[in-house]
Amino acid sequence: MFRLFSQTRCCLQVKRALQRQEWPLRPAHLTAAAQQASFSTTSVEHLSWSDSWPKDVGILALEVYFPSQYVEQVELEKYDGVEAGKYTLGLGQKQMGFCSAHEDINSLCLTVVQRLVERSRLSWDSIGRLEVGTETIIDKSKAVKTVLMQLFQDSGNTDVEGIDTTNACYGGTASLFNSVDWVESSSWDGRYAMVVCGDIAVYATGNARPTGGAGAVAMLVGPEAPLVLERGVRGTHMEHVYDFYKPDMASEYPMVDGKLSIQCYFRALDQCYSVYRKKIQSQWQKVGVDKPFTLEDFQFMIFHTPFCKLVQKSVGRMMLNDFLAAPNPDTQSGLYKGLQAFRYSAQQLAGSRIGAFSYGSGLAASLFSMRVSQDTAPGSPLDKLVSSLSDLQTRLDARKRVPPEEFAEIMKQREESHHLVNHTPQGSKDDLFPGTWYLERVDDKHRRQYARRPL
Amino acid sequence: MFRLFSQTRCCLQVKRALQRQEWPLRPAHLTAAAQQASFSTTSVEHLSWSDSWPKDVGILALEVYFPSQYVEQVELEKYDGVEAGKYTLGLGQKQMGFCSAHEDINSLCLTVVQRLVERSRLSWDSIGRLEVGTETIIDKSKAVKTVLMQLFQDSGNTDVEGIDTTNACYGGTASLFNSVDWVESSSWDGRYAMVVCGDIAVYATGNARPTGGAGAVAMLVGPEAPLVLERGVRGTHMEHVYDFYKPDMASEYPMVDGKLSIQCYFRALDQCYSVYRKKIQSQWQKVGVDKPFTLEDFQFMIFHTPFCKLVQKSVGRMMLNDFLAAPNPDTQSGLYKGLQAFRYSAQQLAGSRIGAFSYGSGLAASLFSMRVSQDTAPGSPLDKLVSSLSDLQTRLDARKRVPPEEFAEIMKQREESHHLVNHTPQGSKDDLFPGTWYLERVDDKHRRQYARRPL
Repeated sequence: MFRLFSQTRCCLQVKRALQRQEWPLRPAHLTAAAQQASFSTTSVEHLSWSDSWPKDVGILALEVYFPSQYVEQVELEKYDGVEAGKYTLGLGQKQMGFCSAHEDINSLCLTVVQRLVERSRLSWDSIGRLEVGTETIIDKSKAVKTVLMQLFQDSGNTDVEGIDTTNACYGGTASLFNSVDWVESSSWDGRYAMVVCGDIAVYATGNARPTGGAGAVAMLVGPEAPLVLERGVRGTHMEHVYDFYKPDMASEYPMVDGKLSIQCYFRALDQCYSVYRKKIQSQWQKVGVDKPFTLEDFQFMIFHTPFCKLVQKSVGRMMLNDFLAAPNPDTQSGLYKGLQAFRYSAQQLAGSRIGAFSYGSGLAASLFSMRVSQDTAPGSPLDKLVSSLSDLQTRLDARKRVPPEEFAEIMKQREESHHLVNHTPQGSKDDLFPGTWYLERVDDKHRRQYARRPL
Repeated sequence: MFRLFSQTRCCLQVKRALQRQEWPLRPAHLTAAAQQASFSTTSVEHLSWSDSWPKDVGILALEVYFPSQYVEQVELEKYDGVEAGKYTLGLGQKQMGFCSAHEDINSLCLTVVQRLVERSRLSWDSIGRLEVGTETIIDKSKAVKTVLMQLFQDSGNTDVEGIDTTNACYGGTASLFNSVDWVESSSWDGRYAMVVCGDIAVYATGNARPTGGAGAVAMLVGPEAPLVLERGVRGTHMEHVYDFYKPDMASEYPMVDGKLSIQCYFRALDQCYSVYRKKIQSQWQKVGVDKPFTLEDFQFMIFHTPFCKLVQKSVGRMMLNDFLAAPNPDTQSGLYKGLQAFRYSAQQLAGSRIGAFSYGSGLAASLFSMRVSQDTAPGSPLDKLVSSLSDLQTRLDARKRVPPEEFAEIMKQREESHHLVNHTPQGSKDDLFPGTWYLERVDDKHRRQYARRPL
């Protein structure tokens, strides 16, 4: 996330969070320990027959999962025999999380969903919709969502809408939009929606390998949220292109045309930003505000992050768009000079507009925005949301650093075993974080059994 | 579709339509030739800031595509050396459509989308959302939707939301729900949504092969529709089960536990019907109607059709549910006796409630209902919808019957070629219907190029 006020900016990549940028939620500036956000175990008020949209629909709570191990990109540069700084300075990468053979897309999503429900003290029957956005396809028919229904079993709640959505890194965004639409539609039955975005991004040895990663995010969606999706302004750009795709069904690795993909990313950003600006300016005009929308109207920006350097360039790209769109641009403006580290807490987020650019190769892209609620009092939804994420830095620090040799060996193991039947993944499970689901066994009919490490 | 009034019932399976049941839209009872439904090329009225749901959101128009060739199930019985009647009487199958190597899921969807837009005289920029439900995955990352964006290219319209949705045969239903929700949400920008459901269902030689099929349906979704999705009543059942799945990524064939899948189908039907009944009865009670909902309250039923016999059994199953739920069942009732062929036209559909049961292995299932509009005047939305489908029988009759030997050979060709790169599909394209898109070439980087047969 880029904080975009006068001189100060900083960056958080939510996708592939394990790349470990300057993670802004430093424990020093937040509560020291993770707090459990508490939600009602009963359904929220049933508004679906009021013939109108509930207020402030957006993200109520969220949970992040990343693998417990990573490889230092500096060490990977040496191991791969490339020039020093190629991955770290050239691509802006730092530490890359990755999964051992014990984890697959199902186990990642099981972990993050159960964790969100437990930490938010939700009851399983308070969820009326659950959907998964992923491009990590291990079954061409059976959705990850159906595997997650195991978690609902004891509750008896099977009336849970939503299913899997796929297009490269865009699936999660499409799922979030679908869930927000659901809450605003007549289909909403007053219960929460949950959106899960998860992927294991691995690349063949070569240029693209350091841009891999793995992780999952679960979001609780409903009304009166601290992060409200702004209505009627999202700009989307979709086109047919082969920049990154996965046509080799037997491999975990994609086909990548890196240069083309960067061109597509920027083209999509330009187009989405143009549509977004047009829509929001049209809204402003209706209430008598006649001014151009610029990057300064976002207080923060979140970008899909193929690699970290691309995100830094994207901010420049958006400023260039502002400049080109301005009738009389102030070329003397010093607004965009300098870059400083920054810190925030819930107070600094309050009332902000957060822009979010999502890109999935192939391609599908959207620029949308969220409004942060104003109430930062202890126990407020915003306070709960921020508090629930306060242990992220601690969790990142608790990961195990794995030397590149071992990383390469684990990647090789995945290549050789990810499709096997009658198979028990090899290696120790001791490094998995407590409460992590893992793949226990694939039987002779490809059926996958999962188990959970104790909390 | 089962027509469910007093003594009369008949059956239409919309999924895998090519199985060719007693297709009810007989030209004799409809206009002789297909008419082009005409829609405005400009956006429908922009209601998204009225803070309420538009009226009568549902299906405005639809288009069906099936392959131009089929195999007679009677002949397949002989060829497979099974007892006479095993496929035709035991499973209720008659004729099975199938694709040659020239067709894949992308070409099917290209065809049906372009056909719907052309026949409805839509402009490409009048579509604000397009999504695809499929389990025919030929790329683990790139959505079919992105391939369809080729059709929008000349219009310059790239602001088209929606992406691919997958869970066995349920993806299309999830897409329909998503699109209806979108129209009712603040995200709706006044344009049409289009939902595409497509699959190529092929099975390895053996028991499941005669239950295959291929086809695609495109639906135009918006307000003031002749087929209105009823609000707040859909019943969903999802659980984790391995009844039918596709874990062998390199094969087009699924793993199937047929017996388990039938059990799951019935369990899902029971559960969905129970939830649906509870919700609709609750709605009725709010307006002072206190009576149990029974199958008689549907005038028609549509079922997901793994094979045709299962659908006939499903109606019996729902009646059993009614019987069990009734406080004082009338065991003398003759309502359910007898079965007669029937015919309808737009007039007979008008005002009906159509129940629809969707099932996707894995599993995800929903029972929902549609209300048919009352207006049947020439040029009315309902008249246009029915007219636009009036050539279905003619088109079915125009298909080419292929002997089982040739069918088996084509299946073998697909097995051997479906994953090849640097490949041009073999065989004649002359049998494809006019206006059909087909796969022209897969290059050395797996990129697929399509062409269209002239209209």
